[in-house]
Amino acid sequence: MTAEQIEALLADVASGRVSPQAALEKLRHLPYEDLPFARIDHHRELRQGQAEVVFCEGKTADQVVAICERLAAVSGSFLGTRASEAVALRLQAQFPRLVWNSLARTVHLPSAEPRTSDAGSGIILVISAGTSDLPVAEEAAVVAEAYGHTVERLVDVGVAGLHRLLAAGDQLRRARVVIVVAGMEGALPSVVGGMLPVPVIAVPTSVGYGASFGGLAALLGMLNSCAAGVTVVNIDNGFGAAVAASRIVRA
Amino acid sequence: MTAEQIEALLADVASGRVSPQAALEKLRHLPYEDLPFARIDHHRELRQGQAEVVFCEGKTADQVVAICERLAAVSGSFLGTRASEAVALRLQAQFPRLVWNSLARTVHLPSAEPRTSDAGSGIILVISAGTSDLPVAEEAAVVAEAYGHTVERLVDVGVAGLHRLLAAGDQLRRARVVIVVAGMEGALPSVVGGMLPVPVIAVPTSVGYGASFGGLAALLGMLNSCAAGVTVVNIDNGFGAAVAASRIVRA
Amino acid sequence: MTAEQIEALLADVASGRVSPQAALEKLRHLPYEDLPFARIDHHRELRQGQAEVVFCEGKTADQVVAICERLAAVSGSFLGTRASEAVALRLQAQFPRLVWNSLARTVHLPSAEPRTSDAGSGIILVISAGTSDLPVAEEAAVVAEAYGHTVERLVDVGVAGLHRLLAAGDQLRRARVVIVVAGMEGALPSVVGGMLPVPVIAVPTSVGYGASFGGLAALLGMLNSCAAGVTVVNIDNGFGAAVAASRIVRA
Amino acid sequence: MTAEQIEALLADVASGRVSPQAALEKLRHLPYEDLPFARIDHHRELRQGQAEVVFCEGKTADQVVAICERLAAVSGSFLGTRASEAVALRLQAQFPRLVWNSLARTVHLPSAEPRTSDAGSGIILVISAGTSDLPVAEEAAVVAEAYGHTVERLVDVGVAGLHRLLAAGDQLRRARVVIVVAGMEGALPSVVGGMLPVPVIAVPTSVGYGASFGGLAALLGMLNSCAAGVTVVNIDNGFGAAVAASRIVRA
Amino acid sequence: MTAEQIEALLADVASGRVSPQAALEKLRHLPYEDLPFARIDHHRELRQGQAEVVFCEGKTADQVVAICERLAAVSGSFLGTRASEAVALRLQAQFPRLVWNSLARTVHLPSAEPRTSDAGSGIILVISAGTSDLPVAEEAAVVAEAYGHTVERLVDVGVAGLHRLLAAGDQLRRARVVIVVAGMEGALPSVVGGMLPVPVIAVPTSVGYGASFGGLAALLGMLNSCAAGVTVVNIDNGFGAAVAASRIVRA
Amino acid sequence: MTAEQIEALLADVASGRVSPQAALEKLRHLPYEDLPFARIDHHRELRQGQAEVVFCEGKTADQVVAICERLAAVSGSFLGTRASEAVALRLQAQFPRLVWNSLARTVHLPSAEPRTSDAGSGIILVISAGTSDLPVAEEAAVVAEAYGHTVERLVDVGVAGLHRLLAAGDQLRRARVVIVVAGMEGALPSVVGGMLPVPVIAVPTSVGYGASFGGLAALLGMLNSCAAGVTVVNIDNGFGAAVAASRIVRA
Amino acid sequence: MTAEQIEALLADVASGRVSPQAALEKLRHLPYEDLPFARIDHHRELRQGQAEVVFCEGKTADQVVAICERLAAVSGSFLGTRASEAVALRLQAQFPRLVWNSLARTVHLPSAEPRTSDAGSGIILVISAGTSDLPVAEEAAVVAEAYGHTVERLVDVGVAGLHRLLAAGDQLRRARVVIVVAGMEGALPSVVGGMLPVPVIAVPTSVGYGASFGGLAALLGMLNSCAAGVTVVNIDNGFGAAVAASRIVRA
Amino acid sequence: MTAEQIEALLADVASGRVSPQAALEKLRHLPYEDLPFARIDHHRELRQGQAEVVFCEGKTADQVVAICERLAAVSGSFLGTRASEAVALRLQAQFPRLVWNSLARTVHLPSAEPRTSDAGSGIILVISAGTSDLPVAEEAAVVAEAYGHTVERLVDVGVAGLHRLLAAGDQLRRARVVIVVAGMEGALPSVVGGMLPVPVIAVPTSVGYGASFGGLAALLGMLNSCAAGVTVVNIDNGFGAAVAASRIVRA
Repeated sequence: MTAEQIEALLADVASGRVSPQAALEKLRHLPYEDLPFARIDHHRELRQGQAEVVFCEGKTADQVVAICERLAAVSGSFLGTRASEAVALRLQAQFPRLVWNSLARTVHLPSAEPRTSDAGSGIILVISAGTSDLPVAEEAAVVAEAYGHTVERLVDVGVAGLHRLLAAGDQLRRARVVIVVAGMEGALPSVVGGMLPVPVIAVPTSVGYGASFGGLAALLGMLNSCAAGVTVVNIDNGFGAAVAASRIVRA
Repeated sequence: MTAEQIEALLADVASGRVSPQAALEKLRHLPYEDLPFARIDHHRELRQGQAEVVFCEGKTADQVVAICERLAAVSGSFLGTRASEAVALRLQAQFPRLVWNSLARTVHLPSAEPRTSDAGSGIILVISAGTSDLPVAEEAAVVAEAYGHTVERLVDVGVAGLHRLLAAGDQLRRARVVIVVAGMEGALPSVVGGMLPVPVIAVPTSVGYGASFGGLAALLGMLNSCAAGVTVVNIDNGFGAAVAASRIVRA
Repeated sequence: MTAEQIEALLADVASGRVSPQAALEKLRHLPYEDLPFARIDHHRELRQGQAEVVFCEGKTADQVVAICERLAAVSGSFLGTRASEAVALRLQAQFPRLVWNSLARTVHLPSAEPRTSDAGSGIILVISAGTSDLPVAEEAAVVAEAYGHTVERLVDVGVAGLHRLLAAGDQLRRARVVIVVAGMEGALPSVVGGMLPVPVIAVPTSVGYGASFGGLAALLGMLNSCAAGVTVVNIDNGFGAAVAASRIVRA
Repeated sequence: MTAEQIEALLADVASGRVSPQAALEKLRHLPYEDLPFARIDHHRELRQGQAEVVFCEGKTADQVVAICERLAAVSGSFLGTRASEAVALRLQAQFPRLVWNSLARTVHLPSAEPRTSDAGSGIILVISAGTSDLPVAEEAAVVAEAYGHTVERLVDVGVAGLHRLLAAGDQLRRARVVIVVAGMEGALPSVVGGMLPVPVIAVPTSVGYGASFGGLAALLGMLNSCAAGVTVVNIDNGFGAAVAASRIVRA
Repeated sequence: MTAEQIEALLADVASGRVSPQAALEKLRHLPYEDLPFARIDHHRELRQGQAEVVFCEGKTADQVVAICERLAAVSGSFLGTRASEAVALRLQAQFPRLVWNSLARTVHLPSAEPRTSDAGSGIILVISAGTSDLPVAEEAAVVAEAYGHTVERLVDVGVAGLHRLLAAGDQLRRARVVIVVAGMEGALPSVVGGMLPVPVIAVPTSVGYGASFGGLAALLGMLNSCAAGVTVVNIDNGFGAAVAASRIVRA
Repeated sequence: MTAEQIEALLADVASGRVSPQAALEKLRHLPYEDLPFARIDHHRELRQGQAEVVFCEGKTADQVVAICERLAAVSGSFLGTRASEAVALRLQAQFPRLVWNSLARTVHLPSAEPRTSDAGSGIILVISAGTSDLPVAEEAAVVAEAYGHTVERLVDVGVAGLHRLLAAGDQLRRARVVIVVAGMEGALPSVVGGMLPVPVIAVPTSVGYGASFGGLAALLGMLNSCAAGVTVVNIDNGFGAAVAASRIVRA
Repeated sequence: MTAEQIEALLADVASGRVSPQAALEKLRHLPYEDLPFARIDHHRELRQGQAEVVFCEGKTADQVVAICERLAAVSGSFLGTRASEAVALRLQAQFPRLVWNSLARTVHLPSAEPRTSDAGSGIILVISAGTSDLPVAEEAAVVAEAYGHTVERLVDVGVAGLHRLLAAGDQLRRARVVIVVAGMEGALPSVVGGMLPVPVIAVPTSVGYGASFGGLAALLGMLNSCAAGVTVVNIDNGFGAAVAASRIVRA
Repeated sequence: MTAEQIEALLADVASGRVSPQAALEKLRHLPYEDLPFARIDHHRELRQGQAEVVFCEGKTADQVVAICERLAAVSGSFLGTRASEAVALRLQAQFPRLVWNSLARTVHLPSAEPRTSDAGSGIILVISAGTSDLPVAEEAAVVAEAYGHTVERLVDVGVAGLHRLLAAGDQLRRARVVIVVAGMEGALPSVVGGMLPVPVIAVPTSVGYGASFGGLAALLGMLNSCAAGVTVVNIDNGFGAAVAASRIVRA
């Protein structure tokens, strides 16, 4: 329900075409849809700028499919993250156009017709420190692409071999925003943040062992970055980093 | 040292005007300056887009003053954070134009002549959840203003009284980027992130008692925000949030 | 053993009908029953107001069945939580009237005859923030219903889409007590607590990933709620929330 | 602004006495009041059932006094917690009727005229495990009394000397709700919860040393209580426990 | 090697029957035995008073069997804890006299001939708070019995139903030392410690969920016990508690 | 109130000399004494074997003095721990016989007449790893002496210089129970526990820096001791260790 | 690319044989090789002194094999750690000379021709506290041997039976550097560090249960070692310890 | 007592010049010295290669002075760390040759006559990431110099401005061992470890705020370094790093 629609409604009340009680009811009838186990927020795109994304983990396959069906019916597309193979195969059977990225664990039903995007033209660069960080980095890249952005990737450039990063200077300087995905000590965002003037979004991963404590070491490292202006999202949260990058590029 | 200067240097080597050994030395002579206890990075502005800021905590007053003197001599201005009253008074005596904000604990010597800014025109909105969060919020606001940005403030709009936030809709919608400062459970960024399409930078504060554990509760709450795209900086790090916001608005 | 029975016993001692030694023995013979691995507390209902509930996790199927048999033999009913499918099927084979809720993981053998309830008439409203929180929310709802209370449910109303919660105002205002189940940042109880004057019981769930640390983030968020008067139970402890709500409504 | 006032406003819109634009403005003009550093929520009593309470810690004395002055001007009374001696003396000078409880660290300006209370008649019993827990227990008791409730106290009845608790059976059974304040291992709420059918609110305190970790041990103990239905508030949060108890008794 | 043997050796040196070099070698030849992956400490009984016990977890079945074979060959008996079913079956095939307690996860090969014990006559009482704590309690009981002590058991007497504990007064008063095994909030040792003058050894278990954090809650509760003189062993360490109790009773 | 007195009372009821109601009242009149802020447990000695000890920290000087006065009036002696200099001087003025140990922070008023002790004859050996651990070790030693035990001390024998410990073999072998006080990595109890067959009580101290985390490192080290049978008390809890040792020696 | 090669290149620029642009490109063409998911750092040996080692955990078998193929092709050898059985069998099929150590979980393809080593002649002694620590100790030993060092092993010499360690004095004194692997309380490095003047590298293992918290207890113990000069690597990181020892011995 | 002395003693026993009993006593008379509160280990230099160093924190000034007096009397020199100004002034008054470094908080009484050192000729390079890390870095440097080593310093070269580090290549390559001192995210050792083949000892500092948690973030970062072979000492433990470096260089 847009602001214009609300203004029109209030004008109707003023003119007597709609009673106050009826107006109250309409205002309550907000654009979400009830399933027995979920409320789908069809208007999130208007409010936050991005359509609702289905976080598949912790939901049964039946629940995921039902939600995706409703999203597809209303908007012609959907995007899901943390999709298991079982969920992906169920959806593929139902939506032949589905794009499943097993490394990123994403399922995407793109819109059938090309849509005029407000995604802006800035490049989102996704950097990963090691091979083991790739699933999280790919999740970020795939989500950003699904939102209509131009994405570049730079892989396996950890701080213990800095020359590999330094050699990629051109690619670094092209980016409008950089997502840096790293586990272990999480030092890469500090180095990138010290080299570039653009926004840097750090994603700690749970890669590591021993005292990495499931990504805590990388998370703390990034929060304490000596390069000012680095911001951080949750451990392994490639999706969140992509949404944050999209908010920056789009505006 | 700009890229053009380096190209010129290499051309000089090619033409024989400079020997390889001499070129090597020049390339090593990078634009920082040695004090016995610090290296001032005069070229950070070129590289990262913002001049170096002095973090005063953990330095002696003598060290802070010496660093500020060098920065003032080279660039005509400086900005310091976490300045104690003692440090501020020392600097005020030496730099009559100094602006000291005791709530934000900042000291700022603005440039004497107005400078052409590349700060962009977007508004940075700083929201604080409670009165006790104000020092951190002010640090963010003062730093962003020192960087040349337009800053707006919205204070004391915690989630337990959401109508106060909802009533500020116009101000919220004007912002290009929002900094949300909150202690206790740190829930405000989730609510703001769910209402707006622009970037939201969350700053947890150490305000609270008992199981807030010095801001840990707010930090974890913000990292786990159910509003996708919220990014987080360190506890009480208003400075870092301002730098991140500046990176977003400027580009 | 009721207070009246104890008074009677002491009177018997006074009158010589019972010797002091015999009285001592009777007082010791309290109404619990010994199995080799458990003591069943048949009088908990008199003392605490609710019958003993079997926590099935960490017990073997044999132990659970043996305890339920004794409870059924004495009181004609039992209630179990955290029941695995294996345990539920064993019990179903033995007690055809058994109600098994696989989402809530509860097994309930209701009393055969309707019993006069002192459960009171207040409504217990169970709110869940997301679809993944449903198992915990259902556990709370099923337990409260088994105790004879009227329960309403409101699902998937997280703080990132507050309009969904705001639209449910009538339902909120009907409740005598509200149980709010939420994972991730655990912010929903603060919002609900700020809207309503009734008791709010917050249940953190282990839903989330990365720095949610198995529900710790939600737990700390709820303990630090800026809405005064919110109380908290253990992570994923829907059962405990239901008992607490029952204590409030019943009295 | 009451629901009746809002209905009247909408009726005015319907009848043309108020334009839609004006109605919109009025609806936005919610009953809070702006100070430069705080927004006072004069209508919290209508919404949540209790007037706003000033948390004095982390605010300057000037800020506390300014907020209290506004509350006194509008409602004729105020209540503050965590008040330092300095703040209390400042307020006492200005409000001769002020009641300062230095143990509980509360400042209370009661209403001049007796007000018809909806506080209900149930007794709130505040139990403290040790002498060192008294400041927190007193905070709970004073706040509950300020809200108009009948409060009883039971002090120094830790679980290592259970006979002291058992001897107080009558007092325990009179209560409509029990607040149990304990530090160290925080075991007292489990014992009380096992004895009584009424709601039990547990308040961990930071009393203890070594591995009590500032109240964490007591907090975890209470959250893991084997007596079902015990709910918990933040460490040292006597105020929150009182609000929760008030929500229970009042309804 | 006993002290007497060492004295004899030194006398031999003095008398010239043994050269200093040879004495040095003998002193070095201490009574342990090398396997490629373990050194068996056959003289631990002389030094610490108890024979070495095999902790089976983290060792391969082959390693466990090899160690037990050596212990059986030298001393005619062995005791293992944390034995998986696979290990137990392997040992049973080889040692028909083996006693395997699957609940306690212990394997015990008792000495063929009765040995004169210095175990003392004091009773070791093992109390468990709940049914789920039984494996740990049984480990403690079985180990103490293997050491030759008289053991009594008291099960399922958690603090939420204290009358069950109070009714066991005679059994409590008979004990020379009490081992109290409890998970969840770990409050039972405080209550027992407040009732009795004998040593109380508390064993936290990992039983519980949510914020029990694998037994941390119980561990902290026990360390902070308000009953002075309670000592604590590691989480789930029934074995350690039995050894500590044996040290107390034996002396 | 002794068991004999209770038996006599019940006999009086049987004979009609005492009415049931009066008996009930007498049974309730347990031997504690009410101060406004504390209940003194005069019969703890009968129940637990040791008189109540005053933990002075967290109590006001007035409260400590009042409690000590009552203890002195009833029993002729008292013992306090964690006494500040201010409290000690107040008590010294009032009780000239007071023994104040400023290192151990204890205040002790010994009984005027020698009392027949049931303390047993076993030696309690208190070992401290470093000079900085002495306050905690002294607290343990002083408390044990106040309870009538024979105490020996062995100081500064950390594991990095094991020969100092090994040289004290005779003293070690004399002890009936050993209290080992250590900070830093807390390894000393493992070494002592591996050398001796008697009970070993480990006391972690908060001595250390950096990642000792206030004694957490030592605490975890002691709980994970590879020497079976070592038990642990709270960080810096010399008092608790003394009580535990007394329970062992006395019985 | 060696320093000599770079000097030669700069000389070529000076002499006009190479244009500045071409030189720039050559300098950028650093000696790593791109796979789609990894960048192999063929020159790490020149820079850090050891060839790159493949950490197999968290990589798919296909990724591991592809990386090993490239390393074998370029250098004729490779070394991998944390190799699963599946990965080892895949590699064995392809490289018949492969040495797979299933206890250490290493895969090693040694160079076909003997190479002149700069490994130095110092002995690296690897000590393990218990049998369960062997996998980590073996990882350290195998890696050090693959680097060309002489390695000795000393197993199962925990601090609870110190005589086993003391008897190995000669072996201890031969070592140029000692790696000490221990779980549980992690005390062994302190004892070794107190006995020897050479570098001691401590490796905490995740062996233990309960409050060992996955090796945290051992890690903290080692960091707080009272034997100065002990350094620590990550939990279970035998590989890292071997690299550190190699850095020490080689120089 | 040297090995030669022990051999001589045993020979005396063999020849009858010394009785076995007397030999036993002599062997016990190890070379430490008893003060009432400390045992001074005069032979540590023989055993570990470095003389005992006095850790002044947590000791009274009287204790420090007494220990230093004994060390000076026996060896003519001493070294103390963490010395407060008060302690330093007391020692200066007594030992005019004392060297006090107030930044490093060290007190050093060098030997009067030059001693032939076995310190080796390798350079120990101490790198600090920021100005606030200087006290810890200086402690490391001063201790290493007191041990007779050649020390170089490189200050303020954090990873956010890597060019400052890269420019110091010559100095880096000269070092035999590098100590890297860093707070905040602790990333500098990873970068240094990736550049150099020599041993790298990382020292986390407590510099930082918010989620640095007193140095925990830096500590975890260093333990999880992606540059293999970096070893770590305790937070702020410059002393320990110097001892470790000395062990490496000296051998």
